Amino acid sequence: MKLKELQQGMKKKGIASTLLLNLDEQVYPNLAYFCSYQGFGAMVIPLQGRPVLIVPKMEEARAQETGYRVEVYKTSFFDTVKKHLGKPGEHGKIGIDQSAVSLANYKLLKKRIPSRQFSDISSLCSQLRLTKTPNELSVMKKAFFIADSIVEECFLSLRSSPHLFRTEHDIALFLEKKTLDHGCSLSFPVIVGSGKASSVPHYEPLPKKIAKGFCVIDFGIRYKGYCTDMTRTIYFGKPSRKERDHYLLLQHAQQQTIAKVSEGRSCAELHLFCEKLLGKLKPYFIHSLGHGVGVQVHEAPSLSPKSKEKLREGMVFTIEPGIYFPNRYGIRIEDTLILQNNKPVMLTSLPKDLLTFCL
Amino acid sequence: MKLKELQQGMKKKGIASTLLLNLDEQVYPNLAYFCSYQGFGAMVIPLQGRPVLIVPKMEEARAQETGYRVEVYKTSFFDTVKKHLGKPGEHGKIGIDQSAVSLANYKLLKKRIPSRQFSDISSLCSQLRLTKTPNELSVMKKAFFIADSIVEECFLSLRSSPHLFRTEHDIALFLEKKTLDHGCSLSFPVIVGSGKASSVPHYEPLPKKIAKGFCVIDFGIRYKGYCTDMTRTIYFGKPSRKERDHYLLLQHAQQQTIAKVSEGRSCAELHLFCEKLLGKLKPYFIHSLGHGVGVQVHEAPSLSPKSKEKLREGMVFTIEPGIYFPNRYGIRIEDTLILQNNKPVMLTSLPKDLLTFCL
Repeated sequence: MKLKELQQGMKKKGIASTLLLNLDEQVYPNLAYFCSYQGFGAMVIPLQGRPVLIVPKMEEARAQETGYRVEVYKTSFFDTVKKHLGKPGEHGKIGIDQSAVSLANYKLLKKRIPSRQFSDISSLCSQLRLTKTPNELSVMKKAFFIADSIVEECFLSLRSSPHLFRTEHDIALFLEKKTLDHGCSLSFPVIVGSGKASSVPHYEPLPKKIAKGFCVIDFGIRYKGYCTDMTRTIYFGKPSRKERDHYLLLQHAQQQTIAKVSEGRSCAELHLFCEKLLGKLKPYFIHSLGHGVGVQVHEAPSLSPKSKEKLREGMVFTIEPGIYFPNRYGIRIEDTLILQNNKPVMLTSLPKDLLTFCL
Repeated sequence: MKLKELQQGMKKKGIASTLLLNLDEQVYPNLAYFCSYQGFGAMVIPLQGRPVLIVPKMEEARAQETGYRVEVYKTSFFDTVKKHLGKPGEHGKIGIDQSAVSLANYKLLKKRIPSRQFSDISSLCSQLRLTKTPNELSVMKKAFFIADSIVEECFLSLRSSPHLFRTEHDIALFLEKKTLDHGCSLSFPVIVGSGKASSVPHYEPLPKKIAKGFCVIDFGIRYKGYCTDMTRTIYFGKPSRKERDHYLLLQHAQQQTIAKVSEGRSCAELHLFCEKLLGKLKPYFIHSLGHGVGVQVHEAPSLSPKSKEKLREGMVFTIEPGIYFPNRYGIRIEDTLILQNNKPVMLTSLPKDLLTFCL
């Protein structure tokens, strides 16, 4: 994605080659963005022309699937990387991703390539990733369609076969297995928090019986490298008047905030707008309003009071206010949307009226 | 684990406090090792006394489950971290993990805490993790018992209900779903490579029909924070004489190499020993003999020709020779074992004679 734009950005910053290093075994988002290869190795992107992937022999076949040029290093990984960074005498700067290169690897680079200067490209990359291309949007729409259908199937099953869901873990398992059936993986561990546990925003579901009361279900999948994210809060049993009022207030605040989405709107302002709608419940809203979604489930922009970003055409982000009463209950409603033609276009389309289930 | 040993190591290095930062959303192995908390935040470990976890409000409940002291930061994360790193005037060095701190976060630290010196503790941590405590071994034994039983169930099912397994993906899905049923997660994406795909060491299974020939199945789970790793190669159809001979040669080499495991044995030497047993097939053995296993599925020691480490009592590591004939087939047999009482004690106990299945 946006390789040409990266090269244009490199030119402006006086960078001759960009080096994306993946020496650990975790998913490296910027490498996932520019090429889907996720094994050990490096990608060297020259100012002009085709990038090359430098990988060990055992990863050759996997790397070739990306369609990029592949070079297998023999004795020394760093010598091969160095060769691709330019002929001897080359003095242009080398772009590196400060947000992903560890201090240890940076020191190694400085030692192995002492003659060159390094320049950070992390903000250039996150700027490119901030707005999505039509290709990305088409993959993401499919991803959200699948994720919605999985949650819908779960709710139908909770209704028709409640005996299958004894514990929070059973609900999480249902969602995860359906995700696998679709050939996808989770974009983060499923959150299913019932009863008091609904008041813990990042709760991990346990094999303990589903408790009466609100149940927060936060779920996302990864499809063709792109993430989804959505939360629905359901109710086991019969909510009290006050609980229902809290739900309605949050639902209203979320809906009104979505309606305010437009180009140029400040992210911080949107957070504060939603907070204001929560009135007296504001102290119980203890996280940000939302975040960008793409190759990472949490990426720029941040929709928080401290954010300096403004909403732009083509951004994909969540709107997810929540209220949490410690040791009592919590409610969160989260949608992901695109800012398109100056309007919010929903990627998550599951209804938001409070669903209640027998316990 | 081994918190006191870390504090002793800090003392020797003149470190007053160690700061483990987890500002990204990936699993951070050293934090997983010292405390099971995996959300956003930091752990400050003083030279003496109890560590503290510094986390945002929304992660308070999760952090408290670790049993460590928890402080929720209010306005500034770094100011709270700084406060715990010592009173004004404190000059002792701050231990950081160079292998995990990004260059960007290191620069931020230097800017926010300019008066202090930083010292690397990454090798101290990996040294501590190199040999396992009795507690760790007991968790790992349970983990491997579960993983073995899942693979055994898969083989039984392949035998009794072959119609359930049409594609490589079906086999991977079976293993992953059983993992979830045990309340565990995968320690890495399941590898199921049949036919030609068996020659690709890190192949990702596809929803394509299982092909005749060798099928490499590499599978590991994560249980209570600890990983397992094992590979078996099975055969769909009837192997040729040559294929059977290749399998037997590899099986023999693996078994003989395991028998050589003893205290003080150099890791490089063990790799070379196995390579030698492969004779003419040596060029087709294109990766390392093995690696340590613990909170990470790949950790120290490395059993490779370049390794400088020696085997020590309490180490847990794989022995996994493989031979790969590009575009034809591959075979890998991988066990994980403990070096205990100067002998190899197997953690994986599934038989290794070649299993054949109808296609």
